[in-house]
Amino acid sequence: MILSNMALVAMTDGAALLPDAVVVIRDARIAWTGPRTELPVAYHADEHTDLGGRLVTPGLIDCHTHVVFGGNRAAEFEMRLEGASYEEIARAGGGIMSTVSATRDTSQDALVENALPRVDAMIAEGVTLLEIKSGYGLDRDTELRMLRAARALGVQRRVAVHTSFLGAHAIPPEYAGNADAYIDEICIPTLQAAHAEGLVDAVDGFCEGIAFDTSQIARVFDAAHTLGLPIRLHAEQLSHQGGVALAAAHGALSADHLEYATEKDAKAMAAAGMVAVILPGAFYTLRETRMPPIDALRAAGVPMAISTDCNPGSSPMTSLLLAMNMGCTLFRMTPAEALAGVTNHAARALGVADAGQIAAGMRADLAIWDVTHPAELSYRIGFNPLYARVFAGTLERQHE
Amino acid sequence: MILSNMALVAMTDGAALLPDAVVVIRDARIAWTGPRTELPVAYHADEHTDLGGRLVTPGLIDCHTHVVFGGNRAAEFEMRLEGASYEEIARAGGGIMSTVSATRDTSQDALVENALPRVDAMIAEGVTLLEIKSGYGLDRDTELRMLRAARALGVQRRVAVHTSFLGAHAIPPEYAGNADAYIDEICIPTLQAAHAEGLVDAVDGFCEGIAFDTSQIARVFDAAHTLGLPIRLHAEQLSHQGGVALAAAHGALSADHLEYATEKDAKAMAAAGMVAVILPGAFYTLRETRMPPIDALRAAGVPMAISTDCNPGSSPMTSLLLAMNMGCTLFRMTPAEALAGVTNHAARALGVADAGQIAAGMRADLAIWDVTHPAELSYRIGFNPLYARVFAGTLERQHE
Ligand SMILES: [Zn+2]
Ligand SMILES: [Zn+2]
Repeated sequence: MILSNMALVAMTDGAALLPDAVVVIRDARIAWTGPRTELPVAYHADEHTDLGGRLVTPGLIDCHTHVVFGGNRAAEFEMRLEGASYEEIARAGGGIMSTVSATRDTSQDALVENALPRVDAMIAEGVTLLEIKSGYGLDRDTELRMLRAARALGVQRRVAVHTSFLGAHAIPPEYAGNADAYIDEICIPTLQAAHAEGLVDAVDGFCEGIAFDTSQIARVFDAAHTLGLPIRLHAEQLSHQGGVALAAAHGALSADHLEYATEKDAKAMAAAGMVAVILPGAFYTLRETRMPPIDALRAAGVPMAISTDCNPGSSPMTSLLLAMNMGCTLFRMTPAEALAGVTNHAARALGVADAGQIAAGMRADLAIWDVTHPAELSYRIGFNPLYARVFAGTLERQHE
Repeated sequence: MILSNMALVAMTDGAALLPDAVVVIRDARIAWTGPRTELPVAYHADEHTDLGGRLVTPGLIDCHTHVVFGGNRAAEFEMRLEGASYEEIARAGGGIMSTVSATRDTSQDALVENALPRVDAMIAEGVTLLEIKSGYGLDRDTELRMLRAARALGVQRRVAVHTSFLGAHAIPPEYAGNADAYIDEICIPTLQAAHAEGLVDAVDGFCEGIAFDTSQIARVFDAAHTLGLPIRLHAEQLSHQGGVALAAAHGALSADHLEYATEKDAKAMAAAGMVAVILPGAFYTLRETRMPPIDALRAAGVPMAISTDCNPGSSPMTSLLLAMNMGCTLFRMTPAEALAGVTNHAARALGVADAGQIAAGMRADLAIWDVTHPAELSYRIGFNPLYARVFAGTLERQHE
């Protein structure tokens, strides 16, 4: 298949725009791309699909989501806004443990069923690769069930799913005050079991005062290394705990959130070749006022990804386009940085080498937009200009 | 037609929820509504449409939009984020005058064509009544063309359109430094011409240091009174100018924005029976830190509406659901207040008596949602759970 008559933003050279471009697809891969006038003779006989001059980017990548979970937290959202105290919300069963409890009570099929509208909303905005974390089970069976549900979503929908094991997300009630035992008795053995079942693409953790300290996370990272799995970390979100330094020392792919990260952390990330995953939805929902050190990350040359952080508590957001707008509006990222944040830099945060750019050999995953300039993708708020997606080489119009 | 098996939020008694409710529709009006068990005998023979237990609210009302305009301001958005100064942006033709210039250069058909994707996005979220302002023409022909385009949108799409004449939006370049002459020579005569053509449902203005002062707005209000047209005002958005007091003294339907309004203003609005239209999209986009006096408005008993303020500069937002979430997240409004803000209070801001509630005699305009509790409509971010709309008595599934 040859796609032609498009303005191409290949993301191989910033957000540079190539007018009158052509993309040749063979076997779900990009075989060639460039100016129409330079199309190799070998492809001259192929039939063209005319994209009417539309803008084409790589398919979007949401590289940090908790999209699989049981229940929702609308009642807690309402209670808080009606003036309930944290104690009252906790007494009513609110907070992350309410999601853990609901997830433990939800079957694999129901987890998939509940997640599908959220995943469909992402796909409708041009997402072709989606990361999904475990971490609301905090026991062996539920963690495995969440990861199986994540894999099932990738089978039921035309989207690639990348899983992260996030057993080190929170301390379950049955291990309250005993985080070390939880890590050693549940988290690491469950990681090993999940890996044995082929359910784990990466290992993540939450290094925070309310979650796990650096020594506990280090044990999870060591277990991941032993299994040959790449690692990532929720780091310096609510306070500075040294998570970034730990992640850098362990060769992590990314550190995520980073509101309390320092310039020194930024330099450590650059030296370690890490990606900074920026999650403005959580910043917005928590009404955080401390911003991640965008200028320091930029100055140090750390690639920045942007993601929804889709989760039922601190970021019940399913729109990656809105996350791009929030990255620009709240964090003063540029539209070009926002687009890199959901394409090539997001792929890098996942350790996926063949997505996020439009170039020969990459997956033929594209987003085709009814806009003329890539900045329009970040500029609008709550508007979806997607015309069509190409997933694994197949063109799919929305709502046709 | 009888709609049955729904959880009804009629908005006649806060956001109270009536399970197993029935709505009877006759001739695009609601004939009866209440518990299924109390359905009058006269309707027993009618066929039922089963809504599967879904949540039903009044159709949403976006009561403050500038959805008709030429061009877009993505390039300016990008320039600013890339570090351009206000002078550089102005030199590049940025700011509201770039939209005025683009709108003057756009035909009526093209204005409609450009607005349709935005209006369609609103309809897809359950909007059944939409206010549209002029104000990017600032000359007779373009102001009239904008209002004709607004009326045409209400013909081309199944949505009710309510127009506001906003000639007093900004001072056009040809009257720079001469706002008084603009009001007297262009704004008021154009209002009279637009009214004569049946294009005006209400009259609006922008009372601000960068726009018009209270004496200029007062002349526009007087002209509106002479024509028998209701009035509204953009007031106290960027500074305190006395717009609310002026609007209250003139019996305005609403004052909109209100970041710099005072407790005294809130009391004046209550005494005048005005609605406060809260526009969190502009607050968010402008990174404003001063919040409208929500507590004072609530204490004074001023009904609060919420709207997108959809416009190409300070709020390029088309999602009323997102405006609800922003009202809750940024301004600590409750989900029940947010829902009133896009239904009964929004209708009141427009002076429309027969929309915004589900009760006998009202327009049969409904939104049917795939949620179980009304708080879910405000809780999610960038997610659209609409199942179907009823507009003028006709049930319309999305994307069927
Ligand atoms: Zn997370
Ligand atoms: Zn406005």
